[in-house]
Amino acid sequence: MSHSLVVVVPELSAEHSARLREAAARHGFECHICMDFAQSQRFLPDAEVILGSDVSLAGRAPKLKWMCSHFAGVDTFLKEGVFASPKAILSNSSGAYGVTISEHIVMLLLEILRRKPEYQKHIQEREWVRRLPIRSIYGSRILMLGTGDIGQEVCRRLRAFAPSFIKGVNLHGNNPGNLFDQVQTPEKLASLLTDTDILIISLPGTKETFHLISTPQLSRLPDHAVIINVGRGTVVDQEALEEELQNGRLYAGLDVFEKEPLPAESVLWDSPRAVITPHVAGDTTLPHTVNRIVDLFLEDFENYCTGRPLLRQVDRLIGY
Amino acid sequence: MSHSLVVVVPELSAEHSARLREAAARHGFECHICMDFAQSQRFLPDAEVILGSDVSLAGRAPKLKWMCSHFAGVDTFLKEGVFASPKAILSNSSGAYGVTISEHIVMLLLEILRRKPEYQKHIQEREWVRRLPIRSIYGSRILMLGTGDIGQEVCRRLRAFAPSFIKGVNLHGNNPGNLFDQVQTPEKLASLLTDTDILIISLPGTKETFHLISTPQLSRLPDHAVIINVGRGTVVDQEALEEELQNGRLYAGLDVFEKEPLPAESVLWDSPRAVITPHVAGDTTLPHTVNRIVDLFLEDFENYCTGRPLLRQVDRLIGY
Repeated sequence: MSHSLVVVVPELSAEHSARLREAAARHGFECHICMDFAQSQRFLPDAEVILGSDVSLAGRAPKLKWMCSHFAGVDTFLKEGVFASPKAILSNSSGAYGVTISEHIVMLLLEILRRKPEYQKHIQEREWVRRLPIRSIYGSRILMLGTGDIGQEVCRRLRAFAPSFIKGVNLHGNNPGNLFDQVQTPEKLASLLTDTDILIISLPGTKETFHLISTPQLSRLPDHAVIINVGRGTVVDQEALEEELQNGRLYAGLDVFEKEPLPAESVLWDSPRAVITPHVAGDTTLPHTVNRIVDLFLEDFENYCTGRPLLRQVDRLIGY
Repeated sequence: MSHSLVVVVPELSAEHSARLREAAARHGFECHICMDFAQSQRFLPDAEVILGSDVSLAGRAPKLKWMCSHFAGVDTFLKEGVFASPKAILSNSSGAYGVTISEHIVMLLLEILRRKPEYQKHIQEREWVRRLPIRSIYGSRILMLGTGDIGQEVCRRLRAFAPSFIKGVNLHGNNPGNLFDQVQTPEKLASLLTDTDILIISLPGTKETFHLISTPQLSRLPDHAVIINVGRGTVVDQEALEEELQNGRLYAGLDVFEKEPLPAESVLWDSPRAVITPHVAGDTTLPHTVNRIVDLFLEDFENYCTGRPLLRQVDRLIGY
């Protein structure tokens, strides 16, 4: 057989593997399911299609026609020279992460509003301290940067908490599924920020989103505003944000950082105004997420094999 | 004037006080708004109506006709001899706490499912550790003990996370607002527990609910099940629950305990399988909660002054 599919997703169950093998066989593909990059090495020279997220995979596959990342963010694949086969198309697994990341966002947000970092310090000392003034999602003004799968799933969940409104910002100003109270284009960002209690960022890491939120934007947010970032750390100017936490004005819930792992000397590790997690919002330890990755890949694999366009193809120039 | 209203709710704003004074004056009541129990002392001998939650208020008011607790739970008022005026009616502020307690429940639940206690230990040590297997509300089987204001508000919020189902248990088996997939009476509890991933308890502390969840009930829950308790600590046999955490079978998110403050030697303070908070789920530091307390009291104050039955009267024998 001349067609070869290489899969490097360590979290696959036996059932997932069986489904991938069945689809591959049906379309005349050899199917190599590998536990890690090392194991995949000998199959890469002949790989036509790869499902995985290690960027080195693309560099070792000169016959590659389609790279499907099992992550939603594909910023690592955008650098020049990453692909040994420059014309290979790239797709992502946008749509697999909405459930897990939206739950993470709601957790970070409630932890900040209910002053978990401070309560946690007391719990750690076995101190029964109460009556730190808390806040609520109820009645809050929410702005979402990014209205894709993740933004939409968050919007659905937050709606049930009866916020005052949920507005969105995306490139085209369209309102997906009419879920948002209003969607604006990025030019309107500055004026939207002044009416925002909760700013949620789920944007890809691209040239255009680099430091989209920096000192001028932060300074437009009202005192007490909360910033949640689960997209890419580069979207927020972290030094500027740290200053707003240090001077006691804003709050933050962060799963992503400009430099990861977060350096040990960062003030974010124990700021009373920040909740942080180590880039785990879109965690593939959740079986539902892996199910979705396989479902979405198989859907596009059918498209690929029958000559139809891929549903989740990424523009390698703009990055999503 | 012969009628006297005494209010001891320290969190009232000037606007809240003005609304209470206006309603009192309209019905021929003197209105004494006090910051604490000490300040209220000289007004208690003549008090006809009291809004407050300190149980000593009822003991010092021989002319009391109506005690309105600004809390939802009134267990402290049920003991014999608490009222200097034995025929006084008692009401609670059920309906004021649904928003804040439901947000707290969702936070505790997500923290347990996403292994926050373990992640938090690493964050504390500034360690970037990832890949602890997490779980999701999505697809989970949820059972709610108690389908009152709090149970309903939690149900509305959790529904947006797409659980497999949300069943309820209450005394009558009725399904308020058709919010639940199914509501059963307490006899069915044992069989419901075997199909429960997430057990949420928002029950009043009464004789009937004392240790409703003890070893036999806990043992029916599947391994990995999560118990959230925000009602009263006495509903759960804490020693039995601690054993199930220690032996690595169940998980818990607890805001209430059999003994409060939680004793310093409790294993709950730093169990990797428990998230605890110091009885703050229904926190009156949240302005919305205080607004609701005043709204609900004024509604029943109109009822009281016009001879209609109170909407939130509590049966002093059964406790809610």
